[in-house]
Amino acid sequence: MSLTNALPAEAASAAKNASHYLATLPASARNDALTTIHAALSASKDQILAANARDLTLAKQAAENGELSMSIVSRLDLGKKGKWEDMLKGILDVRDLEDPVGKVTLRTKLDDGLDLERVSCPIGVLLIIFEARPEVIANIASLAIKSGNAAILKGGKESTESFIAISKVMSSALEATDVPNTAIQLVTTRDTIPQLLGLDQYIDLVIPRGSNELVRYIKASTKIPVLGHADGLCAIYLEHTADPAMAAKILVDAKTTYPAACNSVETLLVEDAALELLLPPVAEALLEKGVSLRCDAVSRTALTAALPAHTAAILQDAEAGDYVTEFLALTLAVKTVSSVEEAIAHINTHSSHHTDAIVTSNAPMAEHFMAAVDSAGVFWNTSTRMADGMRFGFGTEVGISTNKIHARGPVGLEGLMIYKYKIRGGGHVSAEYGEGEGQRAFKHERVEL
Amino acid sequence: MSLTNALPAEAASAAKNASHYLATLPASARNDALTTIHAALSASKDQILAANARDLTLAKQAAENGELSMSIVSRLDLGKKGKWEDMLKGILDVRDLEDPVGKVTLRTKLDDGLDLERVSCPIGVLLIIFEARPEVIANIASLAIKSGNAAILKGGKESTESFIAISKVMSSALEATDVPNTAIQLVTTRDTIPQLLGLDQYIDLVIPRGSNELVRYIKASTKIPVLGHADGLCAIYLEHTADPAMAAKILVDAKTTYPAACNSVETLLVEDAALELLLPPVAEALLEKGVSLRCDAVSRTALTAALPAHTAAILQDAEAGDYVTEFLALTLAVKTVSSVEEAIAHINTHSSHHTDAIVTSNAPMAEHFMAAVDSAGVFWNTSTRMADGMRFGFGTEVGISTNKIHARGPVGLEGLMIYKYKIRGGGHVSAEYGEGEGQRAFKHERVEL
Repeated sequence: MSLTNALPAEAASAAKNASHYLATLPASARNDALTTIHAALSASKDQILAANARDLTLAKQAAENGELSMSIVSRLDLGKKGKWEDMLKGILDVRDLEDPVGKVTLRTKLDDGLDLERVSCPIGVLLIIFEARPEVIANIASLAIKSGNAAILKGGKESTESFIAISKVMSSALEATDVPNTAIQLVTTRDTIPQLLGLDQYIDLVIPRGSNELVRYIKASTKIPVLGHADGLCAIYLEHTADPAMAAKILVDAKTTYPAACNSVETLLVEDAALELLLPPVAEALLEKGVSLRCDAVSRTALTAALPAHTAAILQDAEAGDYVTEFLALTLAVKTVSSVEEAIAHINTHSSHHTDAIVTSNAPMAEHFMAAVDSAGVFWNTSTRMADGMRFGFGTEVGISTNKIHARGPVGLEGLMIYKYKIRGGGHVSAEYGEGEGQRAFKHERVEL
Repeated sequence: MSLTNALPAEAASAAKNASHYLATLPASARNDALTTIHAALSASKDQILAANARDLTLAKQAAENGELSMSIVSRLDLGKKGKWEDMLKGILDVRDLEDPVGKVTLRTKLDDGLDLERVSCPIGVLLIIFEARPEVIANIASLAIKSGNAAILKGGKESTESFIAISKVMSSALEATDVPNTAIQLVTTRDTIPQLLGLDQYIDLVIPRGSNELVRYIKASTKIPVLGHADGLCAIYLEHTADPAMAAKILVDAKTTYPAACNSVETLLVEDAALELLLPPVAEALLEKGVSLRCDAVSRTALTAALPAHTAAILQDAEAGDYVTEFLALTLAVKTVSSVEEAIAHINTHSSHHTDAIVTSNAPMAEHFMAAVDSAGVFWNTSTRMADGMRFGFGTEVGISTNKIHARGPVGLEGLMIYKYKIRGGGHVSAEYGEGEGQRAFKHERVEL
């Protein structure tokens, strides 16, 4: 890893060159580099935490002056319980994942002695733009090295000292490995993001790690593909055959376990046939957890009739905007629909196509819902919070994508890979194949992998 | 299929709605629609060819006035030998391909009664922008319906009459099927391309079918992902251990069988050790086929020494620009390099990352070349012209992509698919999993497919 003050175009060009070399390294060389980085960071804990403390001091001052939110200050702190250890463990976890490079995913005998292979390979150069969390460097550097990609990292200025300290340690560690130093570059020059986002001749994929605003800004500012999601506007449809206790449990989990997460539920769609018996216990469970319910007229009337007066008094009226708002807080918009078709149409029109769920005991209806809802995650009788790379068993999570191409939903290492086609021949040429005189047909025999 | 004069946003919104319905249709319904379209087009041959003849008359006039190239006029002609039959056969060929929708590509038991599935599904709405060839409508409509995608088609004005005629027939044919009419829309209003390219809320993928200029313009004008390639600057590296006859055969095929194709070779890189014995027979074979060779000083000197004087006299000097030019003609740039590493570096810097090949009898070197060259196709001892979806056995070709994400190289139906994650649970929630008290671990058992 090099800490560069180079111009963005020079850094990106160097990263591209490094990516070509990195793509030819065997798994052992990439894994060894991760082992070496892990050891170097372990040995440098004190100096890195000292640098991090300097960032924290400045950030706390900025927060006192009202220039920075306390949540950013909190995310800066590498000394927080378990954070340093998690960062180090993450490097070895990524190292120990299956090698994603060089997997043959298609093999076809085109003709005798003419063999086609589709082989996974790194994408090339990743640009990672992140905000305050310093541990992202170690995480992203691990993912990049493991997957054979070069990476350019641009972090938020609040964690500059931490970044520089981590970067120096990783850089000198890489000197002893086969991974070139320029494969991972930390760009510290200011105001370089717009320039980096214009370098589509060198950079193949942008991965933003931070707030919705950051992701939205980046998506609007570049032609380079962006892996990520700006919004997580998830809905749950409550159908009248749902089990009431299960419904309450799922809604409480989806809304309250981490309200600021992108996979938390923001809209509850209730079938009208579920208003009288099913919605009240669900609403009570949510209200008990401190959730504000913003109800349409029909659901508010039903709840007012069913709930004790002092409970019903805290219900709120929904406005149209509430159904397209990612509250990221203990607030839930409630809307009554007449059928699963209306629920599907509402979700396909209003949701952010991240994760949406149905709670029902009607299996064919659940299958129809999952086929028709156009979202990365479509769940039946479970919480939207399950949408997560670690929960899916991917071993890591590069991000969650709402893109419709390449990678969708929680993205593991596979999302950092593309493929190439290799043909090994013996002088075969295209003019030999066809239906004309002296020509022959391809064999096109699929070979088992 | 509807022939629409609607505003682009209305057409795109209608296509999005249709895509949600189309995504739930079984394969039989999609295949039946293709059978019906095929029959309707077969029955309407005369009226469609009459419309096509009107387009041709206008185009020929334009060509006479110097406003249109004769190659465009030629591409317009649906009455050309075999073209109509190929168009119709193509519909049935696509119909008979394996269904790409609903393939389970990952299955994990997260816990007892909690099952994760990754399932292929259509991308959504495709925007196809094409130039003169009227048969593209039938081809693209088939690919879209087969893959469960909606499509908006915008064709060149030269084939308007043909498009309208084909579109009317397909539209009334679809009335009798389960595929909604708005799933395939032909937009005929003028000057709509810039508007369509801005509709990223509705359109998920743009597929340009036409000249390099068209593709380059579209890539520069939209944030919607574009599937395709603007350039095909392919190189072949001739290493000194190559068999001379094989090398000549491969070069002649790669350069002369279809010089205007994107997979034709434009640059010959010659190892200096191959200049004396290997390059001369290869050059002679190319010159015999009428290929102009633009040589660097070293290769020109070597060839001048080896070839008869009257042959050497027609050699040309290369300029730097020749190594980044897609000639699309019987012209080949020749450059001397000292090693495979220099060849790889030249290709990674100058080629369009489409298809590049090595001719050698050194297997480890060939493997290294294929690993290190960052192109969609990396071939050993075969012609770059093999880069083709039909030759790869895909049964169809949506296009050839030089993108680094999603689909690369010749793209079959798979390139029109993405996936979603389904979870079927029984009230499982995220808070039950973890290392805390009362929590448990996920099982994450991979289930065989």
